[in-house]
Amino acid sequence: MTRVLVLGGGFGGLFAARELRRRFGSGTEIEIISEENYFVFQPLLPEVAAGSITATHAVSPLRFLLEGVKVRKATIAEVDTDRRVVTVFQGVQRRPTEVSYDHLVVALGQKTDLSRTPGLTDHAMTMKTLDDARRLRTHMIEKLEHADITNMPEVKREALTFVVVGAGFSGIETAGELSEMIGRSLKYYPNIRPSEVRMVIVEFADRILREMPQKLADYALKHLEKRGIEVMLNTGVARATGTAMVTTTGERIGTRTIVATIGNAPSDVVKAMPLRLNRGKIEVERTMRAVGHENVWALGDCAMIPMKEGAEGPADFAPPTAQFAVREARALAENIAAVLREKAPKPFEYESQGALASLGAHRGVAQVWGVNITGFPAWLLWRAYYLGFVPGLWIKSRVLTNWILDALSPRSIVQVHNFRPSAVRFVHYLAGDRVFEAGTRADGVYAVIEGALQLVIDAPEHGGPTTRRIGPGEHVGDRMILGDTRRIGTVTALEDTKVLVMDREEFLRVANGVSAFRSHFREHIRSLYGIDWDPPNGGNPPA
Amino acid sequence: MTRVLVLGGGFGGLFAARELRRRFGSGTEIEIISEENYFVFQPLLPEVAAGSITATHAVSPLRFLLEGVKVRKATIAEVDTDRRVVTVFQGVQRRPTEVSYDHLVVALGQKTDLSRTPGLTDHAMTMKTLDDARRLRTHMIEKLEHADITNMPEVKREALTFVVVGAGFSGIETAGELSEMIGRSLKYYPNIRPSEVRMVIVEFADRILREMPQKLADYALKHLEKRGIEVMLNTGVARATGTAMVTTTGERIGTRTIVATIGNAPSDVVKAMPLRLNRGKIEVERTMRAVGHENVWALGDCAMIPMKEGAEGPADFAPPTAQFAVREARALAENIAAVLREKAPKPFEYESQGALASLGAHRGVAQVWGVNITGFPAWLLWRAYYLGFVPGLWIKSRVLTNWILDALSPRSIVQVHNFRPSAVRFVHYLAGDRVFEAGTRADGVYAVIEGALQLVIDAPEHGGPTTRRIGPGEHVGDRMILGDTRRIGTVTALEDTKVLVMDREEFLRVANGVSAFRSHFREHIRSLYGIDWDPPNGGNPPA
Repeated sequence: MTRVLVLGGGFGGLFAARELRRRFGSGTEIEIISEENYFVFQPLLPEVAAGSITATHAVSPLRFLLEGVKVRKATIAEVDTDRRVVTVFQGVQRRPTEVSYDHLVVALGQKTDLSRTPGLTDHAMTMKTLDDARRLRTHMIEKLEHADITNMPEVKREALTFVVVGAGFSGIETAGELSEMIGRSLKYYPNIRPSEVRMVIVEFADRILREMPQKLADYALKHLEKRGIEVMLNTGVARATGTAMVTTTGERIGTRTIVATIGNAPSDVVKAMPLRLNRGKIEVERTMRAVGHENVWALGDCAMIPMKEGAEGPADFAPPTAQFAVREARALAENIAAVLREKAPKPFEYESQGALASLGAHRGVAQVWGVNITGFPAWLLWRAYYLGFVPGLWIKSRVLTNWILDALSPRSIVQVHNFRPSAVRFVHYLAGDRVFEAGTRADGVYAVIEGALQLVIDAPEHGGPTTRRIGPGEHVGDRMILGDTRRIGTVTALEDTKVLVMDREEFLRVANGVSAFRSHFREHIRSLYGIDWDPPNGGNPPA
Repeated sequence: MTRVLVLGGGFGGLFAARELRRRFGSGTEIEIISEENYFVFQPLLPEVAAGSITATHAVSPLRFLLEGVKVRKATIAEVDTDRRVVTVFQGVQRRPTEVSYDHLVVALGQKTDLSRTPGLTDHAMTMKTLDDARRLRTHMIEKLEHADITNMPEVKREALTFVVVGAGFSGIETAGELSEMIGRSLKYYPNIRPSEVRMVIVEFADRILREMPQKLADYALKHLEKRGIEVMLNTGVARATGTAMVTTTGERIGTRTIVATIGNAPSDVVKAMPLRLNRGKIEVERTMRAVGHENVWALGDCAMIPMKEGAEGPADFAPPTAQFAVREARALAENIAAVLREKAPKPFEYESQGALASLGAHRGVAQVWGVNITGFPAWLLWRAYYLGFVPGLWIKSRVLTNWILDALSPRSIVQVHNFRPSAVRFVHYLAGDRVFEAGTRADGVYAVIEGALQLVIDAPEHGGPTTRRIGPGEHVGDRMILGDTRRIGTVTALEDTKVLVMDREEFLRVANGVSAFRSHFREHIRSLYGIDWDPPNGGNPPA
């Protein structure tokens, strides 16, 4: 039995598995390994974030779409191209499982890596997965709720300023959809005036929508600006915190929402494979066969597919779009079929049929077979095109139902999800930032990693007035451990500072389990307040 | 301006705010404070868990439903009945806000407290909130995916055994819906035979559906058993772990799914208020005025409302159902109106119109105006009743659309949510349990809090064969810190044991931020392996 194994359940992987199944009889086993048990229709993610489509309805189970294909929901640990074996961990399972193959199709897409910009990993949201879209939606509503009730003008300004980094398809569509969502929701927030909302797109290049003709990009830019969306070109991100973004041009934008649509990087599995990479993508021949491998193939966003001999510039390679991924899948399936019949695989050839982008608020831009279309017709075309594209009849009908319901009814502002920040997290501050204030709720212990904080206590009953510098290795806010629910001092950042914040519950759990940690804080509490402290549930004896 | 403040956005709170708004002119301000910005239709939660209704469609924003009422999404910190002020924290805000009132309506429901049973808090899922329902749905699909691909019979058995604790409305409906969901999903899981699935309801009392007449409960029991659902009466939970539940009758049920619908307890806010409690509920007069307070009222699940003078037994008080909460809201609004006009409030009187329960799979039981109905008509009545009950036209139409889509299309097995277990968590084991095995994926550092583990290392390259006992204060699995992704030893529980498990990422963050923690593990690593270890990002200098 010949086994063809597909890694990844995105556009490339799903369609490759389908096309393979179509071409091979029962003598060939087709298997797909995916981290999720569903296919997510990525072009609709901005609409999920904006609430016009329910998350569940933007996806379809792989098992529905792939009859006759073995679906394995698993995390890939490593690929051994010599032994032709992929090692996976299945679900919550910790036992490794080996999956063998004769031909391997790599369609793992790209991951996001924001680590080059200080604070961006810890403070920006991304737009790659369904979870990202739901998280963003929750976050947006949280900001509106907060802005509606806060009494502090600066906090309101920050809560109502939304920054999208990157002006490609994803960035533009996200900004457009979010802007529409806010516009439609404001009637429920009596204390927010439309003029108080600020939506900013930051783009490092000198234009938006690089994949589109200049003329359409110009139309899009003008349309976005007309709707009050600011576009800052030639601008990158220098630093991010929980309340601000600093641009490479030195501007500080007060904001509590940074959506990063930039920072593509190869997935960890691809990086660990013995494959040649070119700009972070797998180097393949024009047939999509990985360079130097007989039976490893790659397509979609993770592959650098040359569209002509001697390809060099970005324009010489297949663009990372759904349109191309689907065509690549077909060609790749044919090539594997050819190789199995001991025939020569063919170079991938495809001429783009055009490009489409939704701008939200019933407007779009499109180029189809060389014709430029803008405005409402382009938007309608966008929807029709993607509805046709969505695989599976049920998901088509669900997406359509969602659109109809959304057109007829008010946009729901239900905040159904709760994405609490990680209980053990890094937080960044700029010099001068307020970290917390006397009288506010105690939300964790803050330990300085880099930089320095200043603690000011006024209350005489707590030993004030006094000022203390908290440097690397020191911590502040530890009275919370004793059960204090309010801060007694005010803390500001003396420099650009990175801290570790631990929530109370997790702090106490670690104190329960790790005696060295417990002893340290016990000592600290005793020396500062003369109190013998033990965590509520006791804990194990010191080792 | 008179201010009436409602605490809680469930049935009692929502309808109280509505009825109050209806009765008072613009001279009275009505405000509602809710932790969530939406009203969740609780009787539909089992359907959300089973996937016949999308989470977003089972809820409605409070702002939609409460025109003219000020909606404040906030967490209540404390209530000062002397100063007539409620202190809240709004959204992510840490600054306390004081909200004053003339009359206070407490409708905070009850919380779940499972702490009396060892391991239950850490290993059982609950069914109170929308998040609970979504989490359960995700978990169920995870188990099916896992059962479909595992090669270990015991793991498969555990993954396919589902235990619901409590046989009231919530427990019965949850078990019924989940059982239907599994039945409809199995065709996508070719390696699971229907006979391998086990659904168990555990009930401490000697019958199910205590709120229903015996005859209907008998019908329900027979129907559930016919569908293969086991009901264990006179049985409680003695202990829970990640892979088993031990009953009070000494039976060990291997399972990875425990849903607890028991353990009602007063919310923290109610507990901290100067109110008299009776069996964990606020003692109120028959007018719903809190005993001993002029201007504090309570209704719904958090109130013990006597239905006659000298009420004593449970049957003498209003039952905690939606039907009653809505009637209580009306009476309470009238009573506050009366008091403000300096008239006497009236005792709450209401005769139950009946009771309904869905058993899933198009079957139900109902008693309406004294008439018993069973089977399909009862189920249809259940749906019609609750559809009529759902507040708001849009949510009605969305729920109906969901039901129609669900009837027409295959049940979606999309696992859209990712509820990872807490990164810093307690895990319980029974004596003899396997904790982890050599060769499996390293998923965290394990520190013993109570009990003892045994580590066995066979591999000579890691110093084996050797056996070590890990007692309280000691830890195991710490090679993971060094970047090892696989376990080198096998660990079992020597006694019933409670451990702290820390995921790698959170472990390293704490190591970055707390030097005492870092030093401890640095020392430990050096003494065991002779290696100088530092966390990847360095960390602050020792304090």
